[in-house]
Amino acid sequence: MTLHPFDGATALEPSGDGRWLGHTSAAYANMVGPFGGITAAQALSAVLRHPQRLGEPVALTVNFAAALEDGPFEVIAQPVRTNRSTQHWTLEIRQQGQPVLTGTAFTALRRETWAATEHAMPAVPPPAEVQPPTVGKRVEWVHRYEMRFVEGGFPSQWDGRDTGASRTRLWLRDAPPRPLDFASLTALADVFYPRIWRRRALLVPIGTVSMTVYFHAGAAQLHEAGTGYLLGQARAQAFQGGYFDQTAQLWTEGGTLLATTHQVVYYKE
Amino acid sequence: MTLHPFDGATALEPSGDGRWLGHTSAAYANMVGPFGGITAAQALSAVLRHPQRLGEPVALTVNFAAALEDGPFEVIAQPVRTNRSTQHWTLEIRQQGQPVLTGTAFTALRRETWAATEHAMPAVPPPAEVQPPTVGKRVEWVHRYEMRFVEGGFPSQWDGRDTGASRTRLWLRDAPPRPLDFASLTALADVFYPRIWRRRALLVPIGTVSMTVYFHAGAAQLHEAGTGYLLGQARAQAFQGGYFDQTAQLWTEGGTLLATTHQVVYYKE
Repeated sequence: MTLHPFDGATALEPSGDGRWLGHTSAAYANMVGPFGGITAAQALSAVLRHPQRLGEPVALTVNFAAALEDGPFEVIAQPVRTNRSTQHWTLEIRQQGQPVLTGTAFTALRRETWAATEHAMPAVPPPAEVQPPTVGKRVEWVHRYEMRFVEGGFPSQWDGRDTGASRTRLWLRDAPPRPLDFASLTALADVFYPRIWRRRALLVPIGTVSMTVYFHAGAAQLHEAGTGYLLGQARAQAFQGGYFDQTAQLWTEGGTLLATTHQVVYYKE
Repeated sequence: MTLHPFDGATALEPSGDGRWLGHTSAAYANMVGPFGGITAAQALSAVLRHPQRLGEPVALTVNFAAALEDGPFEVIAQPVRTNRSTQHWTLEIRQQGQPVLTGTAFTALRRETWAATEHAMPAVPPPAEVQPPTVGKRVEWVHRYEMRFVEGGFPSQWDGRDTGASRTRLWLRDAPPRPLDFASLTALADVFYPRIWRRRALLVPIGTVSMTVYFHAGAAQLHEAGTGYLLGQARAQAFQGGYFDQTAQLWTEGGTLLATTHQVVYYKE
């Protein structure tokens, strides 16, 4: 049985006291350094593997302090406050003794409660009726995801017109398919291409500086989602002074909102 | 000249090496412990006062690890990675040697760039045409804000019906009015009453566990906003397994999107 590239990329070797050794993955290479989603997943993986972990991820924030260099890195995950059914974590990824990622996570024992998905999945054609894009894939990590754009795919012309809208909707999943878990959902939350490229049809330099994921589903619901497609929707709310935000949702094909996610991204011009 | 309660609450005494001493404020007391927005503002205030700070806040995430007890606390703000025009921070508030808040912040020198507010302010009546609510104010901190609900004010009957919607729109500002700055905008981002109370018209126990603010405006734009009203809009996207999210926006009366903010909140039942 072949190891899925995602499992290869998120493999961590324990080095004691909440520390793990990892290695950047050529399969998830971006223009400069790795795809941010895989780095976020590597950080969360340390929490998921920690012997003192209580409950499941509810919130994750990671800050990209510097581009990772290809090679080994150290992940440090520390439970800093454990209550009866909740736990707060600090996260760090280091290379050459310098932090390249900082973050925090919150895990909790989930309980059965009154529940509702208020942000309903939009009405879109099913995955089988939507074709994958034919435009070139510029960076390696994009090959690790199946993306079927329903709305707001890659611009066919990069002509710098202001399209007036940054919204994208797409069916997405790991390629090859892989059963969903918290780590892969974290990476999927970062799959959307930069909203300023969509809004302006212009390939300006960008870089995510901070990303937050709220997990609305527990492990059982992720297991149920299996290798199915997720509908992803992302948009920006403001572009100003060199930074724009992205707010996004990820639903199962059946319409369960698994995660909501936000990020703030540097842009030039 | 009398000190504004907000300035009293966010006063910090330096104790060296990125550490400050603060004190909870009776003026911002909540049901249990202080209003979370004031605690978040106190954490950011340490960054704002730090002699090594580079640039202005762009992103802030705070995690409420435990309810603060009335009394003194220590704030620790450390710049962990400083690049040419950006800086990453870790934050902590401690009481009795235990972390009660963890967090991260990102500051940056803003540049003039192409800009757009994509999430436009909704059309609503101006503040003068909207009346403040007449229902009782249960906790002290609510008196520190002027709130004029345009939509989704406090339910007139707490009868536990499912209203089907969690959206609230209101004009808000400090009471008494105070010129806007990054610290007060942080607190204003937490003013919305819990979305589950709005959705279910039911006062279930709640507690914010993590909150993120993205600042889209620089100091000059906040200065321009002055003591004017902000339009706040908040809604939940999902309620599931004891946690719900809130996504919110804060515009100036003129329609500039100053901040977008998200939080995830524990709820019971």
